[in-house]
Amino acid sequence: MSKVGLLQFDPTVGDLEQNVLRLSTLATQAKEAGATVGISTELAVCGYPPRDLLMERDFVERSMAAALNMSAPLPVLIGTPIPAEDDRTLPTNGVVRSGPDATSITNDEHGRIVAEKQLLPTYDVFDEARYFAAKNRSGLARSFGGFTLGVTVCEDAWQSAGMTPSSYAQDPIEHIAEWTRQGVDIHATVNLSASPFHTEKFTTRLAVARHAAAVLNHPFLLANQVGGNDDLLFDGRSLVVWPDGRAVVAPSWQEGVLIVDLNDASACTWVGSHADDALCIGSATLMVLEPGDDGSSFVDTIEELTNAVVTGLADYCRKSSIGSIVLGLSGGIDSAVAACVAAEALGPENVTGLAMPSRHSSQHSIDDALHTAQALGMHHHLHPIDGMHTSVETTLANVLANGHPVAGENLQARLRAILVMGYANANGSMAVTTGNKSEIAQGYCTLYGDMAGGYAPLGDVYKMEVYAMAERFNQRASSQGKTEPVSVSTMTKPPSAELAPDQTDQDTLPPYERLDTILRAHIEGGQNADDLVALGHDANTVMDVLTRLERNEHKRWQMPPAPRVSPRAFGQGWRRPLASNHDWRRVS
Amino acid sequence: MSKVGLLQFDPTVGDLEQNVLRLSTLATQAKEAGATVGISTELAVCGYPPRDLLMERDFVERSMAAALNMSAPLPVLIGTPIPAEDDRTLPTNGVVRSGPDATSITNDEHGRIVAEKQLLPTYDVFDEARYFAAKNRSGLARSFGGFTLGVTVCEDAWQSAGMTPSSYAQDPIEHIAEWTRQGVDIHATVNLSASPFHTEKFTTRLAVARHAAAVLNHPFLLANQVGGNDDLLFDGRSLVVWPDGRAVVAPSWQEGVLIVDLNDASACTWVGSHADDALCIGSATLMVLEPGDDGSSFVDTIEELTNAVVTGLADYCRKSSIGSIVLGLSGGIDSAVAACVAAEALGPENVTGLAMPSRHSSQHSIDDALHTAQALGMHHHLHPIDGMHTSVETTLANVLANGHPVAGENLQARLRAILVMGYANANGSMAVTTGNKSEIAQGYCTLYGDMAGGYAPLGDVYKMEVYAMAERFNQRASSQGKTEPVSVSTMTKPPSAELAPDQTDQDTLPPYERLDTILRAHIEGGQNADDLVALGHDANTVMDVLTRLERNEHKRWQMPPAPRVSPRAFGQGWRRPLASNHDWRRVS
Repeated sequence: MSKVGLLQFDPTVGDLEQNVLRLSTLATQAKEAGATVGISTELAVCGYPPRDLLMERDFVERSMAAALNMSAPLPVLIGTPIPAEDDRTLPTNGVVRSGPDATSITNDEHGRIVAEKQLLPTYDVFDEARYFAAKNRSGLARSFGGFTLGVTVCEDAWQSAGMTPSSYAQDPIEHIAEWTRQGVDIHATVNLSASPFHTEKFTTRLAVARHAAAVLNHPFLLANQVGGNDDLLFDGRSLVVWPDGRAVVAPSWQEGVLIVDLNDASACTWVGSHADDALCIGSATLMVLEPGDDGSSFVDTIEELTNAVVTGLADYCRKSSIGSIVLGLSGGIDSAVAACVAAEALGPENVTGLAMPSRHSSQHSIDDALHTAQALGMHHHLHPIDGMHTSVETTLANVLANGHPVAGENLQARLRAILVMGYANANGSMAVTTGNKSEIAQGYCTLYGDMAGGYAPLGDVYKMEVYAMAERFNQRASSQGKTEPVSVSTMTKPPSAELAPDQTDQDTLPPYERLDTILRAHIEGGQNADDLVALGHDANTVMDVLTRLERNEHKRWQMPPAPRVSPRAFGQGWRRPLASNHDWRRVS
Repeated sequence: MSKVGLLQFDPTVGDLEQNVLRLSTLATQAKEAGATVGISTELAVCGYPPRDLLMERDFVERSMAAALNMSAPLPVLIGTPIPAEDDRTLPTNGVVRSGPDATSITNDEHGRIVAEKQLLPTYDVFDEARYFAAKNRSGLARSFGGFTLGVTVCEDAWQSAGMTPSSYAQDPIEHIAEWTRQGVDIHATVNLSASPFHTEKFTTRLAVARHAAAVLNHPFLLANQVGGNDDLLFDGRSLVVWPDGRAVVAPSWQEGVLIVDLNDASACTWVGSHADDALCIGSATLMVLEPGDDGSSFVDTIEELTNAVVTGLADYCRKSSIGSIVLGLSGGIDSAVAACVAAEALGPENVTGLAMPSRHSSQHSIDDALHTAQALGMHHHLHPIDGMHTSVETTLANVLANGHPVAGENLQARLRAILVMGYANANGSMAVTTGNKSEIAQGYCTLYGDMAGGYAPLGDVYKMEVYAMAERFNQRASSQGKTEPVSVSTMTKPPSAELAPDQTDQDTLPPYERLDTILRAHIEGGQNADDLVALGHDANTVMDVLTRLERNEHKRWQMPPAPRVSPRAFGQGWRRPLASNHDWRRVS
């Protein structure tokens, strides 16, 4: 039996021409490494998620044509939207045969469709019922490079393992298993995926794959998208699982091909993409897992998180043709780590940091900001804002004297945003906002101030994780003989917005260890106030945290994209009747 | 035969207690006006759209209990989410019996469910497949205050008329028609709706209702939600249609009860809500339509649009407990009309306008701004920004000297945002942004500048419609013997951002008459560049407009809610691969 190449692909949503070119190159690499067939990711030809592009019939037709006509040196199954028969029907999320044997099988385009997605996830980040019609015929590719393969698309495999939030009426894995029981000789089942990343998602996905292989009683192969598109991150980690639970897993955050020998786990190999600008972050080690090993000892959570955040920003910039970044450097932990992320994603020569002290900023803040900028080798400028601050305060003297004190604090953050955006607009750079998930969830930030920016690299990273990422960046620098970018002072001083004299975050918020625990249990775990108090948290603290959270939850709607690194229990994050974005500001 | 009361209700999403109280009051008014049964709107108990609140099982259960236990002096059909049997199933969008006879029919809660929505719209502003399970049993309420009623929920009635973007597999209207053909004696079919407004939506909704009544061969009654929730507006206009096409239609933008005599169109009456804070905008005239009359001679499009925009802001503020508004007054048409809207929605004593001239502002701008503020009787302050502007320019001198000129222009808009937000934060007011749909679609606005604000009253209103609204506000003032708020100068001078010497909008954009035509055909009509050129538009102009539109389309994601007043062909407005929000700025 010959080998299967799983094309772990990093598409750009909407860029059909480039996507097909790059897929074709990956397919060529697969053949060179001994594969006789290739399997792409879900909707590889147009990238996932294509969203409203799918509402243009012309786009769907061009995707299908690009998939059918792709030049490849071996037979490939390609994910593509498939046009509907008429204007009153939605397209489907399908898989077609392409490459050398495709037209020899049939010249009928419809005959080259081997599968159409049956289970359409419509929860959390997924909206597929909006764009696709569901089919109820399971997929099979016969006479495909010598194989007969069961063919499924992403969610199709998840119902069997009970790993979806609500049940579907059908189970594609069970359909294929039934065919094998009826005597159809299926060598393996493949799954074309665009399965997004969050911390610990890999463990779940592996469990789903093992369940499928066990039910099918033949190997289950999953080709997963890799890289970032807007706020979605895909970790790759394409895999093969045998019915006994043995598994081989591709690296994360790298484009390439997992060459699978269906009969020999030890003969599986990884081939990194040859493309010059291919995503390639972290190590290229294959994970070989014995039955029962969930891989957790292979996956360093902070390393994975750090690479995820860097991938998100790097891919966002590459795919949007953004060549340089500007950000405020306060001397605090968030902006220091955001600078590390930007420097690793784009190179320090493409990053500019602005230190913008006000009269409330301490000298150590300026020193710490300068330390980070110099250690990373990025551009940096010092712009004290005291003159502008006084000028605005004078203009607003009457209203500030009689109003809520938060108004005066916000002025500083907004003046800094003007300077950061001035640099961004003048130089064609993107501003990034440096806030973390904990403070954003509490509204401890200023709308049109430190929230301003085209991308929020730490927007889905809790504060204590930001500290862990800082240690990781320091370790990476040390191991290369470089200066650690995050100073001891930045790591150890009490977090402060420095918008009022002697202000610290903990004047307003609980200590971040405790805050993060409560937020994580509520946002990711779905636990309400009663649950949290029963877990031993102080009732007043819980109510304060949840009240601030609800008041500010809508803010996510006006936040720039952040890569998804935490699971979200509450989908789009809409929980209150109405947006109250007029009062998004540092809480008082 | 007795009378049916259609409860045209303005709920607050999530506020179960208040919603039930207000529904109960409407039901009492219905009984006092001679109705023997009441029909609520879709999901009346929790308001539409409840979105992620539906993901909390506790919320769904409390909604259902509130609906079943509502105190009412007559039998009422109430729209409510209905809890799922288990945690692997989604709730349904249903209708239950409440009021005096409900428990005499059955004490079984499940037995009081009379309908569950069959067709779940998942396009444009609708996301129902995300939240609900679809059912396939049509609704019937027997022994209901002496009636037997077919019961449908909103979209259920639209398939029959072919008025949905894609087809559903079933047709609830046809089901009920089949029952009548089988001999079931159904007096009327009711439809509990939350059917959002856009211009000319009424004509479509009336056609759907007429189609249903003709197919059913009995009266079709539709109770529609009224008012605003976030960016959705509901116009009310509850109606009854007879099989021959005669119709009686309730007023728009008012909460109340349409009392329907099933045998006599001329005996139908309208009863306005008695609640102190009830929505009541525009005239309370019933529309009585003969067969074939589509009502267009009754509906003044600009009057309807103006009332829609006022309703959106008024309801947003009331439901969010926002008592006052602050906005920039440039002397231009947009901010003048936005001020008129705010003054009508909240009362001029709750509106503050800031004139913030820069060195590029003309004296007539300051005069025109003052005229509007004084004519409306709102608060107003003059804050020249020249000092701050010079201070920021000095700080950024190097980067501005070598960078893109748009960076310098944006400074002024962002300094104004700091002042507006300073007032808003100090006084607990909401800032509103005054941009219109035409300029927003072209990116002719500054991110974190004039785009700053918690609500965009004109965000879905094309520029030429803004002029028409200005005339309408002037007419309203004249007819009350007041000074016209929008000066002749504001109406007639060339539109200008006044961010550079002698700048006008038409230096960058086509004349607004032409721009609006192109935008409307593309955004609302779905026509692409080829279509537009074939219609006679200049090819270069079309490409410029569409290129600016695509580059800036993602901006909608960071815009505050605007009431929906135009149909949207492209749903959520996502058309390009990636957000490029880093360059949302006045185009150059």
